[in-house]
Amino acid sequence: MTDIDVIVSEVGLRDGLQNVDQVLDIATKKRWIAAEAAAGVSEIEVGSFVNYQLLPQMADTGELVAFAKEIEGLTVAALVPNARGAKAAIEAGVHKVSIPVSASETHSKKNVNRTHDQMIDEVRNIRSMIDALPEQERPYFEAGIATAFGCTMEGHVPQATVVSLAERLIEAGAEEVGLSDTTGYANPAMIRRRIRAVHAAVGRDRLTGVHLHNTRGLGLANAAAALEEGITTLDSSLAGLGGCPFAPGASGNIVTEDLVFMLEAMGLKTGIDIERLVAVRELLKEGLPDEPRYGFIPDAGVPIGWQASLGEP
Amino acid sequence: MTDIDVIVSEVGLRDGLQNVDQVLDIATKKRWIAAEAAAGVSEIEVGSFVNYQLLPQMADTGELVAFAKEIEGLTVAALVPNARGAKAAIEAGVHKVSIPVSASETHSKKNVNRTHDQMIDEVRNIRSMIDALPEQERPYFEAGIATAFGCTMEGHVPQATVVSLAERLIEAGAEEVGLSDTTGYANPAMIRRRIRAVHAAVGRDRLTGVHLHNTRGLGLANAAAALEEGITTLDSSLAGLGGCPFAPGASGNIVTEDLVFMLEAMGLKTGIDIERLVAVRELLKEGLPDEPRYGFIPDAGVPIGWQASLGEP
Repeated sequence: MTDIDVIVSEVGLRDGLQNVDQVLDIATKKRWIAAEAAAGVSEIEVGSFVNYQLLPQMADTGELVAFAKEIEGLTVAALVPNARGAKAAIEAGVHKVSIPVSASETHSKKNVNRTHDQMIDEVRNIRSMIDALPEQERPYFEAGIATAFGCTMEGHVPQATVVSLAERLIEAGAEEVGLSDTTGYANPAMIRRRIRAVHAAVGRDRLTGVHLHNTRGLGLANAAAALEEGITTLDSSLAGLGGCPFAPGASGNIVTEDLVFMLEAMGLKTGIDIERLVAVRELLKEGLPDEPRYGFIPDAGVPIGWQASLGEP
Repeated sequence: MTDIDVIVSEVGLRDGLQNVDQVLDIATKKRWIAAEAAAGVSEIEVGSFVNYQLLPQMADTGELVAFAKEIEGLTVAALVPNARGAKAAIEAGVHKVSIPVSASETHSKKNVNRTHDQMIDEVRNIRSMIDALPEQERPYFEAGIATAFGCTMEGHVPQATVVSLAERLIEAGAEEVGLSDTTGYANPAMIRRRIRAVHAAVGRDRLTGVHLHNTRGLGLANAAAALEEGITTLDSSLAGLGGCPFAPGASGNIVTEDLVFMLEAMGLKTGIDIERLVAVRELLKEGLPDEPRYGFIPDAGVPIGWQASLGEP
């Protein structure tokens, strides 16, 4: 859609729900997807193709992909931990496959029991799998660099590690890398430095999206810094669903409602109707009554007359 | 202090407490001031010289000024609504006098029952009062432009109104103007535009500080944008004290603890020890047990190894 400046990619159904114990019924998930798409959200990560014994919340991802693909103009994304998951995602027909690869090797081993070399192999295998498809059936393939700004196990993750991993991931066949602040360790200066460094290494069109958390309250400040470095896709989660277990009161992902307000108030078109977006929270209230819902805009409302400042010099 | 890049000006004792019904005892206020100064905070607005019948919380401002002035290296600031208040502030011996002047004339009339012209007269009178003092006794005199990004009564406040008011305030004798987002209406793009416009009109050294609220969660994003426009003083409130009545869960002022972390993580020296700063919250817990305490850093802690990224290119 050419009338959008920034793509807000809703990841609540994946990154939000994966941190929620109560399994949300598929009917509510479908209504959530449909309602956000109707509000103007153009990209939704509907789930992940993982081991459902370990993560029953994600067991219906295939069915959600099929449902979401029927919505015109919606980009349907899914996360996969490895080539096996990618195979399932491709069979389900997703538009976009994302594999998280942790810059912290300690985190990678702990999280998916794989070293960097093993993850690069997974990326190569997925690339081959995609290349074997007829051109019109190939999903877009992205590798999200997790713990790209630091890790709760390793602490500091050097910028050089992130840059080198980005180069290897592109070389192995990812069309794009993303930077994920999995642990809420980033700050605006670091965001700028690392985006610049990765852009310099692999090219600006190979890094267009970031995935930010709000663990330390810097999520939107980091988003604003990323925009100024040319980032055009921002992940976020409705109501900040899932929260952050290490910081009571902190959403996990940045909150979609607040992000959309910030972008629109900055004159950046998202294609999203804020009022209709906020209304989607009702589904979470009904479906997951015990989960806290974060965000400021739903309580404070948008400022009176806020659009009047947009034309000012 | 030359080893500070950004002055974090603590306003919790004024802007925080003025929104708290329970009057905090003066002994706790003094301990609060002393503890923040010991943590490295170099400027504290200790209260306001207002009508104490209307705002009993501020009745001890004179005594707090006397106390705070004994702390070496601390800049002691106070807010005054008019020339009468300024007289009291000067008699108490403050280092810095701030008068808020609302860009929204509707807000100005409602809040202090004065038009712009009348407020300009107050500024002129305060200037004369200060000029009549021996040079070494003159406080620094700042006018804070309230509702500088919009108003809950008028809605949009044109940028031209803010710029013109800044010019008039400087002409009337304020050494500096500040921009206050009284209503939490600002966004990073607007922050940049308005700071640039005021800088162009009155000079960069006539606007070095902003006062931000976090009503819509954009407080730190706005702070980061302000820094990039050359702002070097940021107001904030310990624990975001006082909250925002229009947005449950939202601090009023931006939270000092989170702001200091953001600045230090960006490599900007504040002179403040985060751990000692966070410990000051205990005083609020004891003294104002019913008031919510906001902020992410106190719960989440600083990231492990966060300082290691500071030297990266």
